[in-house]
Amino acid sequence: MDVVNLDHISYKPLLPEVKAAMIDAINKDYFNPSSQHKRGEEAAEVLAAARQSVAGLINAAVPKEVVFTSGGTESVNHAIKGVALANAEKGKHIVISNIEHNAVIRSVRRLKAAGFRVTSVSVDDKGRVNPQDVAEAITDETILVSIMHSNNETGTIQPIEEIAKITREKKIIFHTDAADSVGVVPIDVQKLGVDLLSFASNTFHGPPGMGGLYIRRGTRIYPLLDGGVQEHNKRAGTENLIGIIGTGAAARVATTELDNWVAHCQHIKDKLIAELPKSIDEYIINTHPEHSLPNMLSISVQYIEGESVMLMLDDDDIAVSTRSACATGSLRASHVLISLGLSHADAQGTLVVSFGKDTTDEDIEKFLSSLKETVTTLRNISPLYNKVSQQTA
Amino acid sequence: MDVVNLDHISYKPLLPEVKAAMIDAINKDYFNPSSQHKRGEEAAEVLAAARQSVAGLINAAVPKEVVFTSGGTESVNHAIKGVALANAEKGKHIVISNIEHNAVIRSVRRLKAAGFRVTSVSVDDKGRVNPQDVAEAITDETILVSIMHSNNETGTIQPIEEIAKITREKKIIFHTDAADSVGVVPIDVQKLGVDLLSFASNTFHGPPGMGGLYIRRGTRIYPLLDGGVQEHNKRAGTENLIGIIGTGAAARVATTELDNWVAHCQHIKDKLIAELPKSIDEYIINTHPEHSLPNMLSISVQYIEGESVMLMLDDDDIAVSTRSACATGSLRASHVLISLGLSHADAQGTLVVSFGKDTTDEDIEKFLSSLKETVTTLRNISPLYNKVSQQTA
Repeated sequence: MDVVNLDHISYKPLLPEVKAAMIDAINKDYFNPSSQHKRGEEAAEVLAAARQSVAGLINAAVPKEVVFTSGGTESVNHAIKGVALANAEKGKHIVISNIEHNAVIRSVRRLKAAGFRVTSVSVDDKGRVNPQDVAEAITDETILVSIMHSNNETGTIQPIEEIAKITREKKIIFHTDAADSVGVVPIDVQKLGVDLLSFASNTFHGPPGMGGLYIRRGTRIYPLLDGGVQEHNKRAGTENLIGIIGTGAAARVATTELDNWVAHCQHIKDKLIAELPKSIDEYIINTHPEHSLPNMLSISVQYIEGESVMLMLDDDDIAVSTRSACATGSLRASHVLISLGLSHADAQGTLVVSFGKDTTDEDIEKFLSSLKETVTTLRNISPLYNKVSQQTA
Repeated sequence: MDVVNLDHISYKPLLPEVKAAMIDAINKDYFNPSSQHKRGEEAAEVLAAARQSVAGLINAAVPKEVVFTSGGTESVNHAIKGVALANAEKGKHIVISNIEHNAVIRSVRRLKAAGFRVTSVSVDDKGRVNPQDVAEAITDETILVSIMHSNNETGTIQPIEEIAKITREKKIIFHTDAADSVGVVPIDVQKLGVDLLSFASNTFHGPPGMGGLYIRRGTRIYPLLDGGVQEHNKRAGTENLIGIIGTGAAARVATTELDNWVAHCQHIKDKLIAELPKSIDEYIINTHPEHSLPNMLSISVQYIEGESVMLMLDDDDIAVSTRSACATGSLRASHVLISLGLSHADAQGTLVVSFGKDTTDEDIEKFLSSLKETVTTLRNISPLYNKVSQQTA
């Protein structure tokens, strides 16, 4: 199926190098890396090489600070629940922001049942957390701050370094959900100053349902998966070596190609922003003009339903999303957009256009042309739009 | 590397059908199944087909009772922690057995910190739980019984149906860890009568680091991974579709081939038991003579170290294990073998020989010949053996 993929936030194509590495791994059919005979040792070496590649991508001090997981969601659950349970005797207070991914929001909600208290700081109308608000939310009971690196619906990037300065001074563990950032913008855990960082392999064109958690040495955290001694005793369970090998291959390519990917995406994003007014009017851009990922744009098209636009674009073989794929099926307006101050109506009219290294100028032109037609059609049958038009006429 | 794999308990070779399905999935590069456009729907259909195949293998009433996970360990953690937290207001008592996998033992240990009490029932000298002991361990506070289907070190199968009769009568949730059984012996969740059943894809020659949890409709359980709405709201996180496709392909083959696999493994096991006395003396078989998996045998070779035997066999290109791969690196004697009443010395002399559908008579003969030589060499340099020999001479 030849579809223009402007939904990279839901799925990024596997790199050719990733496909080749995974197919080779399947054909080689590596043994269990925990086995102590030579076929086990061979597998353990391959596992170690992948870990080193990922450690290089995020600049971890030592490879064992990288724990492989089944994806961003597991990493976030591990970070939040693992830190909360391991540090409960110090205090039971957690600080997050209003625009976190559901993996964060629902993890802390689960902890509330165990007596934890949560403070959620608000964001400004461009979706940014004020570090000062985090500082003020911290109490003597606070054991964890979790603020996402970039938002999965708007692409807005948070002031992580500034927040880390606050948490380090107060000796509080700081986790950032970078599931949409690692592989899209340069991520250096030393520069950021975080203790924990969640990532997802598919964000750097690796396999879906794979990812990892960076755990700075000395961070007090329990495993989420208890059992065997795998992953340096931090994550039990036989390793998904095929997926880990794909992750390692993706990390190696991302490490060398990231600057090119950023430049290309920024070009596409600039083009999209520049040409959008020629196709439609009455829309709101929810993505921060400066502090945001280069590979996506959140656009609220007023007076119509984003889902209708998405389905009509799909008929034209253009894939976009209206929100996080993880929230599919929910009829409620996005909590992220409401937190930015959008009305429910505007939030419902939102499209997330996300792209990648292979997106062409022609893809964007095809999208804009189809969007123009779609929006015109939908507004013609929109009672809301007609009412507003009459009032302003 | 051409090695005789008698360590199937650590790793089973991928089926050709699994390799082909996974390579095809990698080349097709399916989209995110949660996306609502047509490329997402295409992926959702593939996901549904894999779920149906697994449901068929274990006879689940409806496919949505199968939740895909990152393997047996995640499934066990999900079952135990998810049931405990969701039913804590009814009671905080859990019943397990002394020979459970570390995923069970460490999950309940984690829950102890949250105020749960655990009763661990003992096993007889052949490693079997007495259902009456489970009945007596149950109190008014008991919310969960978790007894493994088969043991990963001895292969002994537990009387799950009888235990399920007790738990059903008392309306207590019953989980069985069948990570070493599904794909090795017929498993029918209706016949077993369990509410929850954990399995691992590699046990039926699917990809490592993949698996699932059967959750009977109406079972009160929380997710372990909180976040998005994937897996019918039971397990958040973008799906590992490549691994799930491999799991589905393995389940389809296992459904039709299982009887042949069982017959072949039983033949190999019978041959091994029959010919072992011709190669070595003074050993103990820890596997139940009747109620056990057809694909493995636990042998404690007296007066020597199992690890030394394993390493010397490795020099002869024969892979066996001494215990669960998950416990690699631990110097302590296996809790399973100690629970059977073995001395520490005998436990340390244990070899787990595990095989599969491709194991040949020649493989077993090569193993027995190498074992004979190895044991002779090691006993010649064993002070313990020489002392015992002198005493009995």
